[in-house]
Amino acid sequence: MTKILILGGGGMVGQKLAGQLKVDGLSRKAIDDITALDLGFPKNSVAGVKQVVGDLSDRSKLAELIAQRPDIVYHLAAVVSGEAEREFDKGWQVNMFHMWHLLELLRSENIASGGDYCPKVIFTSSVAVFGGPFPEYIDDDFLTAPQTSYGAQKATCELILSDFSRKGFVDGISLRLPTVCVRPGKPNLAASSFFSGIIREPLNGQQAILPVADSVRHTHASPRSAAGFLRHAATVNGAKIGARRAINLPGVSCTVAEQIEALRRVAGQAVVDLIVPQPDPDIIKIVDTWPKAFNPQLAISLGFKAEQSFDQIIEIYRADDFEP
Amino acid sequence: MTKILILGGGGMVGQKLAGQLKVDGLSRKAIDDITALDLGFPKNSVAGVKQVVGDLSDRSKLAELIAQRPDIVYHLAAVVSGEAEREFDKGWQVNMFHMWHLLELLRSENIASGGDYCPKVIFTSSVAVFGGPFPEYIDDDFLTAPQTSYGAQKATCELILSDFSRKGFVDGISLRLPTVCVRPGKPNLAASSFFSGIIREPLNGQQAILPVADSVRHTHASPRSAAGFLRHAATVNGAKIGARRAINLPGVSCTVAEQIEALRRVAGQAVVDLIVPQPDPDIIKIVDTWPKAFNPQLAISLGFKAEQSFDQIIEIYRADDFEP
Repeated sequence: MTKILILGGGGMVGQKLAGQLKVDGLSRKAIDDITALDLGFPKNSVAGVKQVVGDLSDRSKLAELIAQRPDIVYHLAAVVSGEAEREFDKGWQVNMFHMWHLLELLRSENIASGGDYCPKVIFTSSVAVFGGPFPEYIDDDFLTAPQTSYGAQKATCELILSDFSRKGFVDGISLRLPTVCVRPGKPNLAASSFFSGIIREPLNGQQAILPVADSVRHTHASPRSAAGFLRHAATVNGAKIGARRAINLPGVSCTVAEQIEALRRVAGQAVVDLIVPQPDPDIIKIVDTWPKAFNPQLAISLGFKAEQSFDQIIEIYRADDFEP
Repeated sequence: MTKILILGGGGMVGQKLAGQLKVDGLSRKAIDDITALDLGFPKNSVAGVKQVVGDLSDRSKLAELIAQRPDIVYHLAAVVSGEAEREFDKGWQVNMFHMWHLLELLRSENIASGGDYCPKVIFTSSVAVFGGPFPEYIDDDFLTAPQTSYGAQKATCELILSDFSRKGFVDGISLRLPTVCVRPGKPNLAASSFFSGIIREPLNGQQAILPVADSVRHTHASPRSAAGFLRHAATVNGAKIGARRAINLPGVSCTVAEQIEALRRVAGQAVVDLIVPQPDPDIIKIVDTWPKAFNPQLAISLGFKAEQSFDQIIEIYRADDFEP
């Protein structure tokens, strides 16, 4: 029986992932044993998941969870980009040092088992590991020169996870998620929050602030695809990935203007009229450091899939999360 | 008056650096105040340098040194590649966590000074941050996908140092040193030790083991150039470096066979005959993961200089370090 632990499982992507695992399983096998750790869980959280309320900094709680030797550990817990930029210490502690301690616990179990226990560790990294100047398309061998603390923390975790994997303590993979869009629910502290806001709020009859120019180009994938990446990663053979275990993922690359055009096609002009441009220098500064488009050959060869158009991304929001 | 702290100042490169600083100063200004920290110092160590015997893990000693607010901190202290590969915990502790604590101490002084104190931090990284497959020449925007723990630790430090620099706590630069060759003295535990050994031992009338095929290509710079890079880095304007503060350096790219040909030209066949091929699978495996040649445009534009041929590298060994 496959045992799964989702760190940060109370968040939006964690819940989508748990939902997909309950409905579709992994490689056509049902998954019954899912534990999720988070600071809190939403009211309508996925049924049949064991919820553990707690903090990754609680080493004894984390040690208890790891002592159960989950076959797959999803590490989604993070301080988001805007917060990590404002709170330097907190960002590094949560986003980097917790990863280190998690891997140390897993390594202890690996050693205690004589090497038999070697769990899959699937880590949500981010395209924020990249920093400009950028080529038009980022290839799989482009350098990581992050220009935010969040990006630096994610890139550091990738290196640490790769080394623990190379040594055979865990079987790790870092997924550089495109911006997840359209996120349901409320705006969050991520600098990327508006990419969802300008679609979600108007569809719900509310005004949305657009803090950047509509010429900003960015790469997006739906929450359904984000969870799909995570689910697919659990089925990819570690040996097939090769030595480079931090992977750029596919997504829809489009400008904000193209996002808005898609919204107009799907929902009409009156909805689009609810978007209010209001430049925010802090957000402009962070978003400017992010890449625009990818040529993710390794991910595609490994079978990772995303949407083909932003229209599809909006339709998925309406199908999965919109409550009129 | 410029105050300089050299962590790992008792090592070979640290001593060369201290020597150059005493003789040539920085930007034609004499340097009088140099402190070096290391586990020990050689008998004939550079005069006029304040020697502090100690370990980077001794936080209170390190804090004392940082409280004196050095203008320039050289961080050369490290566990070498072969040792870091065998001793996983020690490698990460010394090569990564000590860097973190050093930067935290510097940041505290920066904050205490209201931001006035922002020292140059010059970190010796390594070409081991790269992992194959490689292009023929590695450009400045090639990814860091290390295949040794040593390389992963160095790459992690680069990211951390860059983020502390971006935030204005320090003014950091990471120099990815080519293999330093010809190292004087005894072989060390670095997997790259033989690159020096096959030149140094024969010149001293001793046999030398060649543990890899002579078709292995690698990039080298003399100890004089290595110290020169470090000295030059102190004079480079941080703003000119830009956002990418980990720098590939120039060097002489040649095969082991070309090294041996240079030795033959400089010292004759009888000396070359002292090289004994004896393949070592462990060393072959590590060296195979290292890059062969670079196209270090940023470093060259910033004025970093190395030798033009391996013959020159041998001549520098004979001029600076050979004692017949």
